Order: sequence, then C-alpha cells, then structure tokens
Amino acid sequence: MPKINDRISEDKFKLILKVGQAFNSVIEIDRLFALIASTTSKLLEAERCSIYVVDTEQNMLWTRAAQGENRIVVPIGVGIAGVVARSGEYVTVDDAYDDPRFNQEVDKETGYRTKSLIAGPLINNSGEIIGVIQVLNNSKGRFSTDDEQLLRSLSGFAGNALDNALLYDELKKTFHSVLQVLAATIDAKHHYTAGHTARVADYSCGIAREMELHEDELEVLRVAAFLHDYGKIAIRDNVLTKPGKLSEEEYEEMKSHVVKTSEILSKMHFSEGYKEVPLIAGAHHEKYDGSGYPAKLSNGDIPLGARIMAVADVFDALTSDRDYREAMKPHEALELIRKEVGTSFDPEVFAAFENYFNRRYGPPSNP
Amino acid sequence: MPKINDRISEDKFKLILKVGQAFNSVIEIDRLFALIASTTSKLLEAERCSIYVVDTEQNMLWTRAAQGENRIVVPIGVGIAGVVARSGEYVTVDDAYDDPRFNQEVDKETGYRTKSLIAGPLINNSGEIIGVIQVLNNSKGRFSTDDEQLLRSLSGFAGNALDNALLYDELKKTFHSVLQVLAATIDAKHHYTAGHTARVADYSCGIAREMELHEDELEVLRVAAFLHDYGKIAIRDNVLTKPGKLSEEEYEEMKSHVVKTSEILSKMHFSEGYKEVPLIAGAHHEKYDGSGYPAKLSNGDIPLGARIMAVADVFDALTSDRDYREAMKPHEALELIRKEVGTSFDPEVFAAFENYFNRRYGPPSNP
Repeated sequence: MPKINDRISEDKFKLILKVGQAFNSVIEIDRLFALIASTTSKLLEAERCSIYVVDTEQNMLWTRAAQGENRIVVPIGVGIAGVVARSGEYVTVDDAYDDPRFNQEVDKETGYRTKSLIAGPLINNSGEIIGVIQVLNNSKGRFSTDDEQLLRSLSGFAGNALDNALLYDELKKTFHSVLQVLAATIDAKHHYTAGHTARVADYSCGIAREMELHEDELEVLRVAAFLHDYGKIAIRDNVLTKPGKLSEEEYEEMKSHVVKTSEILSKMHFSEGYKEVPLIAGAHHEKYDGSGYPAKLSNGDIPLGARIMAVADVFDALTSDRDYREAMKPHEALELIRKEVGTSFDPEVFAAFENYFNRRYGPPSNP
Repeated sequence: MPKINDRISEDKFKLILKVGQAFNSVIEIDRLFALIASTTSKLLEAERCSIYVVDTEQNMLWTRAAQGENRIVVPIGVGIAGVVARSGEYVTVDDAYDDPRFNQEVDKETGYRTKSLIAGPLINNSGEIIGVIQVLNNSKGRFSTDDEQLLRSLSGFAGNALDNALLYDELKKTFHSVLQVLAATIDAKHHYTAGHTARVADYSCGIAREMELHEDELEVLRVAAFLHDYGKIAIRDNVLTKPGKLSEEEYEEMKSHVVKTSEILSKMHFSEGYKEVPLIAGAHHEKYDGSGYPAKLSNGDIPLGARIMAVADVFDALTSDRDYREAMKPHEALELIRKEVGTSFDPEVFAAFENYFNRRYGPPSNP
C-alpha cells in the first residue's frame, strides 16, 4: 500500500477510490490497457500513457495498447521503462533527452517527441513487478511530486487489475490452445484437411472484422470454428479417410458430422459469453436459401457466425488439395463462391469476405 | 460510486483503499469469498459475513463459502438477502427475528442465531445486481449508520472483484467442460471405457485432497486427467476397439497412446499455472520401480500427479467391465493394487488412496 500524502484532499481520495474501482471492473486485457492509459493521462494532465508488461521468460517488456502507438518490445534494463522494471523505483524526468537512461529509439520509430515523463512499477499482490506504467509529456511541462503521489496510489489498483487480466488472458490462451490442438488432431485423421480448422478460424475472424463485429463475437466465432468439425471423431475411419469419391451412403455418414458436432457440444457447459458456440458450429453447412443441412435453416435463421463460417469453410476446401483435384487459386475460388451468393451464401457476408479477400490477396493480377 | 460520508476520517479512507486493493488482488472465487467475508466481518465488528451470488437463470441466490456454514441456496425475493437481490436497497435490522422479511429457515438449518444484520447489493460495472453481501451480529449489538457507510464503500470494490471472479470461474468451467466432453468422446470410441476419464479425474482429486495438495495442484491434476488418454485418438480403430486380448504388436501400438498424448500436448500452450499438465498426462503409465513406460521413470522422477493418476487409472480399469472379465468389487481392486505398492505404486500415494477409499466405500463388510 503506497503511503498517501497527508495533504491530499478528500476529493482526491474520492477520485482514487473511483478510479481504483473502475480499474477493478475490467478483466479483458486490451480494454484494461485502454482504461488505465486514458484515465491516468487525464488525471496527470499528460499526453500519453503506456502500460508495459514484464515477460520474465523472455526478459522483455511488451506493450499492447498505447494511445496512437503500435506494439513495442524493450529488453528489461534498457530505457526508462526497462530500468523501472528492474529496480521497481519511480523515475520522474523533466526532459527525457537529457537523461542517459532514456531510449530515443522508440521515439524514432513512432515519430513522437517525449519531453517530461514519469514511470513507476506495477506490482501484483505477491509483490512481484509485473509491469511498468509510463506517463509522457505533462501539459504544464513537467510532472510534480503530487503527480507522482497520485500515480503511486493509482498504480496499486492498476497492478492488481493487470494481474487479474493477465491471468484471465492466460487461461483464455490455454483454452484456445487446447481447442486448436484438438481440432488439429481431428484434421490430421483426415489427411487432406491438415490445418483446415485453424484456417477456417482465421478466415471467419477476418470476415467478422470486416463486418465490424465486436471482439466478444469474434471470440465466440473463433471457438465455434475450432470445434466445428469435432463431430468427425464419430465418423468411421474408412469413411473419413476414404480416398476419392464417397458412395451416397458414405456421404450421408460424412454429413452426419455436423449433427454429431451439435450432439457433443450440447453436452458442454458454455458460459454466458459462449452460449452461441454450439449453434454456430452445428449450422456451418446450412445454406442461405434453405437447401443446406442438417436443419435446412435459411437467411436470418442461420446464426450470423454460421453464415460467416460457411464461406470460410468452403473457401478453405476449394483452395486445398484433394485426392481427385488440385487446390484452386484463391481468385478462382472467390469467383466460384460468388456464383452461389444468395443461394448458398449470405450476400452481406460475401461482401465482407470480398473486402477481406482483397486485403489479403490483392487484385487478381497479383494472386 | 457510493457517496462517501464527509465525516469519514482519513484513516478510514486509507483503510478502504487498502481493502479495495486487496479485493482487487484475488480472482479465484473461493479465495475472494473468504477474503471479503473475513475482512468485512472484522471491519464491521461482526461475527459473520456471507456473500450471495445471483443466478438469474435459476432465479436463485447461492453462497459458496460462508464462515462455518455450508452452501446455501435461496430463491430471489425470499429472506432479507433475497429481498436485497431484488430491490438493490440496503437493509439494516437490529433484531432479525422481529423482521417479517427474515427467513429463519437458514438459522434452523445451521443452528446459528442471527440477531443484528446489515445487507447490501453487490453491483457490477454495468449496474447489474450480481450478489448480496450480508453481515451478521455486530459485537455492540447493532450496526450503526457508519457501518452501513463503510459497507457501501467496500461493496463497490467487492462487486467488481466478484464480477471478475465469476467471469474467470465461468471461463474455467467452460474450459473444463470442453475437456471433459472431448475426453468422453475418446472414451466412447473405446466402448468399455465410457466415463473412464471423468472417474480418473475424480479419483485423482480425491487422493490429492487426502495428501492435502493445494487447490491449484488439484486443478492441474484434473486437467491432466481429462487429457491423459487423448493420444488414443491416434490409435487405429481396429486396435482400440478390438474385443479380447491384443497381439504383442497391437499392444505396442496401444501403449504408444501415452507418447501420442505427450506429443499432442507438447503443441499446446499451457499457461504458467498449467505447465505440469503434459508431464503428468504423459507419465501415467510409469511405475514406481522404473518398469513402466514410455520413459521408465522411477520414484520421485515421476511427477507426483502422475503417481497419483497411476493408482486412479488402474483402480478404474479393475472396477470396470471388460469383454473378457467382469468388473471387480472395489475392495478386491484395492487389495490387488496393494500387492503392487513399492513396485507399481508409490507407497505414500497408496496410503492416501486407502484413506480416500475408506471414506468413499467404507469397510469391506459394507462394500
């Protein structure tokens, strides 16, 4: 607990309480970064605020979101943030370019001109330095001892909130990684689909970003994509791995994988935020005009995530090798998909896919 | 943000900051319940403090940890906590038995005698009532307006911390549920092992609890148990599902499932807390004397979790039906395992298993 300066006013106490509570209210790491940075800049009348996270394995500091900057990685011990990460001491500097510890490289990269700065450690409940908070360019030209005092109070809350957010993020990463590998093992049974699931997840999220879906919806879509073919585990090896064309009966068995996927996923407990996962995963073979399977849903009755995944799934199938044909070029696949807009595919989703496609593959002359 | 009474002293502000920060530092729900309950009881000079969580789906309130009490479930709207959950208003009562809203049933169940109480809502950042904090029996006989004021300040932090902890808990549950179902689908391929993975997870955690392992270690063990047979996905169906005895070559293929498990898990990103999962899952067929597979590890070189899982795995195999024999009775299986203590099994783990076994199945006369 930082020592609170006796002269700090009651208003400031209330402010600290309010800000501390706000930090406490965000667990999603990007949102927390943004909240800490914007609140701290405002309170300290600064232009910018960056939050760095200590990566002890790599002996580096990284920052994900910093207003107007891209991701930056610095070695621990280098630059003022790096020095703070090592020492755990606050550093206040009136002109950064006069301080030999300051690393001008970052400014060179970003085109920013750092003048005054104040940096302090973010410490978790176990007393470990887990990050650095750095505030740049006070509007009055320099940071006061009051500013440092205020930062000390805020950073206690910021440190714990960051610790929680990192834990949550790590659990999410572990969860994703398990899903990803499980999906890859299913893909591996079906030799020509190696990497299929991961690509469908990528393409689906690419389309969803074009449609400006919320990060939470992307998360649901990603998890659904990882699991969409899991029902294949229930398909007999000799059907799943048969080279060449399937008989009608075998094709029916193959098609049953979406029902199996739904059956399996229906037994899972998906928390509030993930409730749509089974619905999306189970509907990725529905078609926009109602001619798909298993439920012959059409238009808006097909969850948006499934309409997105349908395009992603077909695009990946077309651009992958099969025993009986070579992979299509991306632009050929795009044109083939275009022919089924309105029948197989949702026109709005296709429009987003085309934007995503153009960003990724460029115009046809440069495939 | 609750309005802070102007007369609250600076010391109290500091205390609130400190407590708020402490709440902020715990994400694991049971620990958070315990921390909020003990801190709040102390600060309000009360005997007890319970935290209730709103379950909107079930329209119930539940509490997991309350000092000296078991889990309690109450309908929203019933009892003082239920009334607070609905109204979002604070309730302060000098003698609960004089208040018609008070539900004496809980006291009857627990043998406790509630006198004074104060209860308030726990609210998340979106303004939703997600819980109720209830403080019982002030040492001076009644709660003052100062106490209520203090509770209002603390509960802001408690509400947000609870929100984070519930999110984390939900993500963990989703993760577990996915693992559990994936494990069950592997079990299902191998018809006589239906439910095997879940039972191995149960037995392993039962043994670990006897050994007083930390809740975090149990979590790792549970995840490792869910995944321990995942390598079976790479075993050919005709080997995996062959009725009767396997040929030597088939047996070798079958044994390779642990190597496959390790291979698959080595591709996963396990966060700091889960780092031991692949090591444990890949070593559950090692034997204490070094005669197991795949690495012929012995004694302490086998991770403790794997030594535990080895007993759990064999116990479940012996007590399950096979094509060529019926399931053994639990006590017969126990005696068979006892014969291999020091050779196949770690004596310390076996001692813990025996305690767990006795708790679960009772003496041989009552199998």
